[in-house]
Amino acid sequence: MSMSDGRTSDTKRGTERLVVIGGDAAGMSAASQARRLRKPGELEIVAFERGNFTSYSACGIPYWVSGDVPDRDQLIARSAEEHRARDIDLRMRTEVTEIDVPGGRVRARDLETGAESWTSYDKLVIATGARPIRPSLPGVDAPGVHGVQTLDDGQALLDTLATTEGRRAVVVGAGYIGVEMAEALIKRGYEVTVVNRSEEPMSTLDPDMGRLVHGAMEGLGITMVNDAEVTKLLTGDDGRVRAVATEDAEYPADVVVLGIGVRPEATLARAAGLPVGDHGGLLTDLAMRVRGHENIWAGGDCVEVLDLVSGQHRHIALGTHANKHGQVIGANAGGGYATFPGVVGTAVSKVCDLEIARTGLLEKDAHRAGLRFVSVTIESTNRAGYYPGAALMTVKMLAEQRTGRLLGVQIVGREGAAKRVDIAAVALTASMTVEQMTALDLGYAPPFSPVWDPVLVAARKAATAIREGAFR
Amino acid sequence: MSMSDGRTSDTKRGTERLVVIGGDAAGMSAASQARRLRKPGELEIVAFERGNFTSYSACGIPYWVSGDVPDRDQLIARSAEEHRARDIDLRMRTEVTEIDVPGGRVRARDLETGAESWTSYDKLVIATGARPIRPSLPGVDAPGVHGVQTLDDGQALLDTLATTEGRRAVVVGAGYIGVEMAEALIKRGYEVTVVNRSEEPMSTLDPDMGRLVHGAMEGLGITMVNDAEVTKLLTGDDGRVRAVATEDAEYPADVVVLGIGVRPEATLARAAGLPVGDHGGLLTDLAMRVRGHENIWAGGDCVEVLDLVSGQHRHIALGTHANKHGQVIGANAGGGYATFPGVVGTAVSKVCDLEIARTGLLEKDAHRAGLRFVSVTIESTNRAGYYPGAALMTVKMLAEQRTGRLLGVQIVGREGAAKRVDIAAVALTASMTVEQMTALDLGYAPPFSPVWDPVLVAARKAATAIREGAFR
Repeated sequence: MSMSDGRTSDTKRGTERLVVIGGDAAGMSAASQARRLRKPGELEIVAFERGNFTSYSACGIPYWVSGDVPDRDQLIARSAEEHRARDIDLRMRTEVTEIDVPGGRVRARDLETGAESWTSYDKLVIATGARPIRPSLPGVDAPGVHGVQTLDDGQALLDTLATTEGRRAVVVGAGYIGVEMAEALIKRGYEVTVVNRSEEPMSTLDPDMGRLVHGAMEGLGITMVNDAEVTKLLTGDDGRVRAVATEDAEYPADVVVLGIGVRPEATLARAAGLPVGDHGGLLTDLAMRVRGHENIWAGGDCVEVLDLVSGQHRHIALGTHANKHGQVIGANAGGGYATFPGVVGTAVSKVCDLEIARTGLLEKDAHRAGLRFVSVTIESTNRAGYYPGAALMTVKMLAEQRTGRLLGVQIVGREGAAKRVDIAAVALTASMTVEQMTALDLGYAPPFSPVWDPVLVAARKAATAIREGAFR
Repeated sequence: MSMSDGRTSDTKRGTERLVVIGGDAAGMSAASQARRLRKPGELEIVAFERGNFTSYSACGIPYWVSGDVPDRDQLIARSAEEHRARDIDLRMRTEVTEIDVPGGRVRARDLETGAESWTSYDKLVIATGARPIRPSLPGVDAPGVHGVQTLDDGQALLDTLATTEGRRAVVVGAGYIGVEMAEALIKRGYEVTVVNRSEEPMSTLDPDMGRLVHGAMEGLGITMVNDAEVTKLLTGDDGRVRAVATEDAEYPADVVVLGIGVRPEATLARAAGLPVGDHGGLLTDLAMRVRGHENIWAGGDCVEVLDLVSGQHRHIALGTHANKHGQVIGANAGGGYATFPGVVGTAVSKVCDLEIARTGLLEKDAHRAGLRFVSVTIESTNRAGYYPGAALMTVKMLAEQRTGRLLGVQIVGREGAAKRVDIAAVALTASMTVEQMTALDLGYAPPFSPVWDPVLVAARKAATAIREGAFR
């Protein structure tokens, strides 16, 4: 094991060194943006990635498993070689094992050789991502049980699918990843059962909206088991998983996919004494600097973000945020200026042709934030009712009592449902009232919308409820 | 001819009378909304419509002509009988010929019998719509030449198509209606030529964006003739149209569709001394009251609207505005309160699977309004690049110098292009800067968007241009 303090030995004279921990969206966006602003002679950039891949779309894994995306490499936005060609000293399969904040250095281990060394930094970016929640259940490590967080996970699952004869799949969890994996496995011809601890699938929706997803999934032939806690994974004589057990029942399984969500991976940061919030993520200021540290930034799935609607912090693992964080960090670390003001909580997904979207607060979020609100739900269509292919769309809208401020929107429907939520995302960012929203000049033509867009219909109903004081 | 002053003879004691001129979107929305607020014993509602239909979707006519919408009646949102069942005294085929403002009455003629009579009003709604621009060209009234403004027009065109053997169609004009009619006629198997006076089709886009539409239309087999002024319509020995002539050429035609646009129909109002603006439309306040008149409202295609981006008035004939106007008028005339703050100029359309959208100002609009701006154009995709069906999308964005305020967005692309413009429509309404837009929390999942939504990519480029002072 070689140990060296790079600060004196390996920093070039007059050149600052930026060290990046984590080679995915946030880390490599930060590195790339900083490189755009500063030449190699001004800023040396060293990035450590413990895995085999850089800058890939974890959100795309379900579509690779389904076969919609045939080739794994399509999910890689920029390879290690491409980063190196841009003068980023990217060290793959190298895991940072310690951050020495007072010393301004990180210790990293080469996972191939086991060699460890210290590298000093003038500026540090922590982009360690998230780790999947892996319940400490009997059998959870048995062959045939897979997470789907990384490309390596996806490859392992595909290998299992290729070598397993049985066609019974159980997905544990019915959030975005669970629902998308259920669709992927149905597409591959599996009998799919989804076991979910919540009242309805998609607990990122209110249960009344989740029920619409429930119905659609059953319509696809997926067996939905809600309100069910998995107690153990049963294995066969060969040691492989053979069933998923809840308190009430056993569900035979030739393959099990864990889609229970993720937590911030802030172990290193916590050990280094950096500030971590209630959700386990690093805390930063608006410039994405770790609180109290001038020269350390953090972004992506390892940080908490400000929810602009509730004023509280949340943890949201989503590639689009990670990319924005990386841009902001790279601008600041590169000597420029940028901020990330926060999120409103937008997320979209689909199960086959059912589109699912939400932004802002659910009812439970609003209660937790101390807000009183009206809640309305409307049904309309994605196109003019007479236009071919017109299909139902359900829109739920929450607005604050007294102020009438929009608090949240959930949409479930066919084509055109998902991205319609962007209307509400912008309105939330602008702190619009639902009354103001009724006058929004949204695109209208029969192939794209009824003459009153479904979001406007919901806004009118919410505004009426506010005026009439239909509070609860 | 019977003439009576209804004020003394036919207004019930204690009951006000609301008279509505025009039975389409704005007029009947106003009548319906007022009826919701006031019972028949409180408010008598009389509506006059000179045509055969009420409350129909003129925007749907191209899709009826194409055959996508098989039945004319599907375009009728609410029939005369349905309105009457809601206690609205709707008089069809009855044309108002005069408004007597000092006398508080209107004169109407029964188009069947020719009988005229005066009806008094306490409150008046003017919703006389628009009239198509019909150039005073030789041959313009020949059989085989059709406008497509009303359901009656659409029926006449369909009758001509059914009885004409030739398959050559010429569309004059390449705005929304011209482009949509070209698609409709291609779908019906016609050889279609579009003759257009502008540099490119869709003069509601900047020419560089219109060029993309031009290419797509040629790809559909449509012959595009730009920069060409029609000088006359040539007729055959049978008196029917046989060709469209420009200064340079003749285009054989078995049928000609005029899609040149519309002007406000404010003849009655102008004759009554009511205020009319530079674009020929009635001028109202924010409550849609005709300026200077406490008890007269106007809405729909006969009024001018405030453009919130330029601060100037415009004429925009669009069903979604007419419906909003009607709601606002009905609320106010019914004793409630509502306003229509203005528009940002959103419009969407399509030619087969090419979607076309704009909101805010074009370059020429911004120049006219005295604004200096940066203009950027980007290409991205509607889905993650690796997701099946990912297709190019071009986004053009204008932002004001110094302030960085968003001024306008134009989008041309495949599925998902049109309604993406709603993001910009809301941002314009909220007077956002392009820098603020770069942080918008828009829906991201691989089937719906790249990790940076195309609108965000454009906003980033525009924000950079603003920061770098790339002004022109």
